[in-house]
Amino acid sequence: MDAVTHAPHPHVSFDTSPDRYRHWKLSFDDQGGAVATLAMDVREDGGLLPDYRLKLNSYDLGVDIELADALQRIRFEHPGVRAVVITSLKERVFCAGANIFMLRGSSHEWKVNFCKFTNETRLAIEDASAHSGIKFIAALNGICAGGGYELALACDELILVDDGNSAVSLPETPLLGVLPGTGGLTRVVDKRKVRRDLADVFGTVAEGVKGRRAVQWGLVDAVYPTSQFKERVARRAAELAAASDRPADASGITLGPLDAAISPDAITYSHVTLGIDRARRVATLTVKAPESAPPSTPEAIQAEGDRFWPLRAFRELDDALLRLRHNEPAIGTVVVRTSGDPAPVLAVDEALLAHQDHWLVREIVHFVKRTLKRMDLTARSFFALIEPGSCFAGTLFELALAADRSYMLDDQERPTSIALSGMNAGPLRMSNGLTRLETRFLGRPALVEELLAEREPFDPAAALDAGLVSFAPDELDWDDEVRMAIEARAALSPDALTGMEANLRFPGPETMETKIFGRLTAWQNWIFQRPNAVGEKGALTAYGSQSRPEFDFNRT
Amino acid sequence: MDAVTHAPHPHVSFDTSPDRYRHWKLSFDDQGGAVATLAMDVREDGGLLPDYRLKLNSYDLGVDIELADALQRIRFEHPGVRAVVITSLKERVFCAGANIFMLRGSSHEWKVNFCKFTNETRLAIEDASAHSGIKFIAALNGICAGGGYELALACDELILVDDGNSAVSLPETPLLGVLPGTGGLTRVVDKRKVRRDLADVFGTVAEGVKGRRAVQWGLVDAVYPTSQFKERVARRAAELAAASDRPADASGITLGPLDAAISPDAITYSHVTLGIDRARRVATLTVKAPESAPPSTPEAIQAEGDRFWPLRAFRELDDALLRLRHNEPAIGTVVVRTSGDPAPVLAVDEALLAHQDHWLVREIVHFVKRTLKRMDLTARSFFALIEPGSCFAGTLFELALAADRSYMLDDQERPTSIALSGMNAGPLRMSNGLTRLETRFLGRPALVEELLAEREPFDPAAALDAGLVSFAPDELDWDDEVRMAIEARAALSPDALTGMEANLRFPGPETMETKIFGRLTAWQNWIFQRPNAVGEKGALTAYGSQSRPEFDFNRT
Repeated sequence: MDAVTHAPHPHVSFDTSPDRYRHWKLSFDDQGGAVATLAMDVREDGGLLPDYRLKLNSYDLGVDIELADALQRIRFEHPGVRAVVITSLKERVFCAGANIFMLRGSSHEWKVNFCKFTNETRLAIEDASAHSGIKFIAALNGICAGGGYELALACDELILVDDGNSAVSLPETPLLGVLPGTGGLTRVVDKRKVRRDLADVFGTVAEGVKGRRAVQWGLVDAVYPTSQFKERVARRAAELAAASDRPADASGITLGPLDAAISPDAITYSHVTLGIDRARRVATLTVKAPESAPPSTPEAIQAEGDRFWPLRAFRELDDALLRLRHNEPAIGTVVVRTSGDPAPVLAVDEALLAHQDHWLVREIVHFVKRTLKRMDLTARSFFALIEPGSCFAGTLFELALAADRSYMLDDQERPTSIALSGMNAGPLRMSNGLTRLETRFLGRPALVEELLAEREPFDPAAALDAGLVSFAPDELDWDDEVRMAIEARAALSPDALTGMEANLRFPGPETMETKIFGRLTAWQNWIFQRPNAVGEKGALTAYGSQSRPEFDFNRT
Repeated sequence: MDAVTHAPHPHVSFDTSPDRYRHWKLSFDDQGGAVATLAMDVREDGGLLPDYRLKLNSYDLGVDIELADALQRIRFEHPGVRAVVITSLKERVFCAGANIFMLRGSSHEWKVNFCKFTNETRLAIEDASAHSGIKFIAALNGICAGGGYELALACDELILVDDGNSAVSLPETPLLGVLPGTGGLTRVVDKRKVRRDLADVFGTVAEGVKGRRAVQWGLVDAVYPTSQFKERVARRAAELAAASDRPADASGITLGPLDAAISPDAITYSHVTLGIDRARRVATLTVKAPESAPPSTPEAIQAEGDRFWPLRAFRELDDALLRLRHNEPAIGTVVVRTSGDPAPVLAVDEALLAHQDHWLVREIVHFVKRTLKRMDLTARSFFALIEPGSCFAGTLFELALAADRSYMLDDQERPTSIALSGMNAGPLRMSNGLTRLETRFLGRPALVEELLAEREPFDPAAALDAGLVSFAPDELDWDDEVRMAIEARAALSPDALTGMEANLRFPGPETMETKIFGRLTAWQNWIFQRPNAVGEKGALTAYGSQSRPEFDFNRT
């Protein structure tokens, strides 16, 4: 389909830490560390593949993996950080956006999953601002183009140097024939509420907008001459830090490596296993409950640190989902299983709910929330299987609610059950702003209340009757029904399934977040397929060569 | 790109009337005509092209043009109609959906514009229900598949015959590797609030769901055995009709033909002209104000009938937009002009506002609203030019607000002005539920109030200052600035522009309507490009042949 031969996908690991960063420097101010600086200094030869050079702070997935890691560490390891300045160590360059040569050389699914990950990372910045008392300033010390400006848009405030040259821009449409792929258009009109006609001009002018006009149009919050720039950024960061509700004297916890055991057919973590059956194009994702009651006070949780079950299990789940997306494109269906005793899971839920105000508990809850959102946004079919010995209770029942379907065995000899907890009632909202129960029962809000009031487990008949599971086959039908459902799914067009799931998973209200993933991403995916972008004479193909793009001008 | 050679697009006319319908029968009950029946009886050999046969009440654009026409006529010509039964005259077949062989033989842009028109027609059903006191029953007398079920979903109530065979279905994903293209997925989960897991099953089962299960899942409202079916439908239609607020004894007006003069480079109506410059890929759309003050009482408006200026002008505009979309795919930019005296336009606005409760005035206002929405959804760039002699006032100023940009000449010698009216304050809402002023100033609701309070015209300086126009070049810059803007636009990738405009035009809240056009349509467009659907071995290509589709199973 595309005109260019694609390099094979690199096998991606999401495991990194500040001492191993190649592209970012994370530092802290000397007045108590309330302001962190995350400075981009991309190594040109540090791309995931040797096919392209990461000039002018342009980025590939590897650069963004470090950014995502740094954001997590600021939240968990540095509770004293109250404001973050995102800037660049390169002279007169903030960031030139996603690397075009990397994009051009990538397969369609690589491009799409790359954009999805960078979008999730931008949203993680906004999540930290909204829920974690960390405000972000984009200190734009030089050119800020495309994905560079989109990164800046994810920050609370944008300060641009006024040096007669530095501009913000979204040159994707005029230069490349594609769309800004990381929420740029949506954030310009929906978050910054730039007038749509000005946004139209901005989105078609490759050189962008600078100086006072950038402020007048609402594209940045302030511009300062070079002589004042650093000092003004520092002053504003200090002001934002002062308003934070983060604790004054807490110590962070260290996010140690996950140490996954990776074999050809499985990734095995301490609480999560991802089994891969490439012949059937099916993966099995299993999450294990803790074996004994985890700690229940903030002090004890803090002492357990990254070994505390929900943090550990959901970090593993997050990693498994990312590896699945990027390294196993041919897996179409994921069977979701859980195992273990529901009691300690429900005890963890109680502890999380009771101590939501504690900074670490708050971080853990929001991390679980973001991981579940990652699952909602993963373009694979999820079927949850509720079997004897499974543990779909409270937070872990969200896995069944996030699945496209759930099957619960109804066998008197080998009983199964599911259970709800307060964690199903609010803390783990989807990107549409609703809980998964509210989304499931969109037309029946009273039923949601009723179900949440029920704290006893549901047996298969009760779960089916309540609508909490899709099907409850008996022991005679179970094997055939589940097997046939999985086989039937594997036979369908993967593209139609991706589109169908993206439409069915998010009923109800739309938010800026769902607009980015639903409306913007879908249009970007469309354009990423069009000959006008990726064909032999398309704009993305022609970029950087001597030839000009040639378009089929028929409008759709 | 697609595997199949496409037939040339037929040149489409949207002009029809009940006496010329080939596929639909419009009839009225004998008890005063409160219930109309719109019965589908598609002529197999009546397609727009001879390449396919419209079997089993499958449809192409020509069939849908008649449906759209019938809906308009019910609103304007038959004010006594309070409920409409949509059904079929074919035995055991309601409607098999869009004709697959037509779709397969169509170019990408034809498919996309076909789906857009059918979507607008479905939304017109819902608009009539919400605003015009006309309730719709889908009387599903037989198989109801794909687009057939999507047509039914646009109705207020769905009644399915329970004959052991008739089912509702969305077989697009399992049979064709595409998505239901007329809002089906969105309406299932968002309008009917079917549980997402049940919707997932429903969307993957080619044979669909029938009988009691269809009611239990919320896919239809009722099922009745064949023996009771007709009587139950009639009874329910009478109940719905009884609750309508339509007038008891009004006479309708006749929507006469528009009699456009069509030359190779222009379509000329009485108040609207569409000039076509294919070499520059630019069209010029001009709307003329009425020459004298139009009538201002409901009686006088009724007496003028379809010659009443706003109805006539916006019917012409609607027709021009449709012909542009379907017959002139290579036109990328539309220059929007108006001419004439603002006074009669503002007088019309006052009359429309004063008599909104009168059935005919209500119909006219909603028709103007729908036409402007059609403009919002037209995938061409619109630039409004506000020049001496122009008439961007009140309702006509909505054309400038709907445009992607506006340029207003600032020349003391040749003054220009724009004006607002109460018609900019609410009656002409966009599909996002906001007025165009509210959308434009999303972050400044107080400014909207302030501007609406100003009933004097705005000169260029005031209009620019208020943000009501994008640019106000003086007479020295005007020609170059406008020419260069139009030329620059024409050089850009049409696909990137389509995607960009679809993202910038609808900031703010999303509704079911914007979800259908934003989220669902974009995904469908993506899939319509994918080799898994339209490639040599894609599912759409393989349908009806001996061969089975072959998929690239990589997920995106």
